[in-house]
Amino acid sequence: MFISFEGTEGVGKTTLIRKLHDHFQNLGKNVVLTREPGGTPMAEQIRALLLAVNHDEAMSDDTELLLMYAARAQHLARVILPALAESKIVLCDRFADSSFAYQCAGRGLDRDKLNVLNASFVARIPDITFWLDAPIETGMLRARERGALDRFEQEKAAFFEKVRSGFAEIHQTHPERMKRLDATQTPEHVFQQALSHLQQI
Amino acid sequence: MFISFEGTEGVGKTTLIRKLHDHFQNLGKNVVLTREPGGTPMAEQIRALLLAVNHDEAMSDDTELLLMYAARAQHLARVILPALAESKIVLCDRFADSSFAYQCAGRGLDRDKLNVLNASFVARIPDITFWLDAPIETGMLRARERGALDRFEQEKAAFFEKVRSGFAEIHQTHPERMKRLDATQTPEHVFQQALSHLQQI
Repeated sequence: MFISFEGTEGVGKTTLIRKLHDHFQNLGKNVVLTREPGGTPMAEQIRALLLAVNHDEAMSDDTELLLMYAARAQHLARVILPALAESKIVLCDRFADSSFAYQCAGRGLDRDKLNVLNASFVARIPDITFWLDAPIETGMLRARERGALDRFEQEKAAFFEKVRSGFAEIHQTHPERMKRLDATQTPEHVFQQALSHLQQI
Repeated sequence: MFISFEGTEGVGKTTLIRKLHDHFQNLGKNVVLTREPGGTPMAEQIRALLLAVNHDEAMSDDTELLLMYAARAQHLARVILPALAESKIVLCDRFADSSFAYQCAGRGLDRDKLNVLNASFVARIPDITFWLDAPIETGMLRARERGALDRFEQEKAAFFEKVRSGFAEIHQTHPERMKRLDATQTPEHVFQQALSHLQQI
């Protein structure tokens, strides 16, 4: 089973993933915990390029999108597909939905560009995706508390509003795959919401 | 005018580019000399990932292709398109034909993947492309003399034979754009061949 976790900054994805990880381990399941962009040493190097704040050279939107998919291709080939082939549960912090939300909804990049990349370079999509949704201000406060902001976290609230609406759009289009969790609730409540969705499938 | 230079390793691209660069400068033209993968500080960082020899983690073919196009997108947006907009002459050491020759003909990657990337992410192709062609052994000797071999240069002769046949295929399909230069000739002779092609356009 391939489970991804989506949402804007600071909505509590990491906390939920850890709780589910422990839950599955307690059930004796083989679980792989991973993240995007990144997930392999090489893909983490691509992540470093993507998150670096560079005042001398702005990254073009196409470059950003293609780097995301380069990291994703490596992650799929070396981590996700092999783990699924061994019947492991893969818990992935962000996946292709983030590309739609951040690059298309957020930056306004042509959706056709994303569609061709998904069609040609994403061999497997998640079985279920948890969208942790909360008002932007809540998450931005939490992200700021974590320390220095990366290139994405430095974006303004208006950008994250668009990203959030991007996730809402996916949720409307693919309600069978993407489940919205109310991330203003306590971590324990969010975890229980996720569990009840998992029990249904 | 946008001119690209293609060929396998060690066929003398750099020497020809320098000669043409001096030639255009002597004519009072504004010339930009650049290369792929790379051409901007950020794209050169992507180049470093692409050329690094990594014994711990093999780069997937999709990752390689997408990193090439990420670097290309940045190079187009920050260097090539702005230079062409200012009516400069752009001399580019490798461009999209190398992706076809190395990734598709060389590695056997699906041509459709390359086609969708070209259609969506390459806004401008060269006006003329010089393919410096020589038997593989000649070039490999020269490449080895330059020192430590990068990830591509470490490939075997059979790989470069396929790459060479990839360039030959582009030359057959687009004879109006791609001009073959006999790279077994002296650098001066190769330069004169290139000049005579340029005088025709």
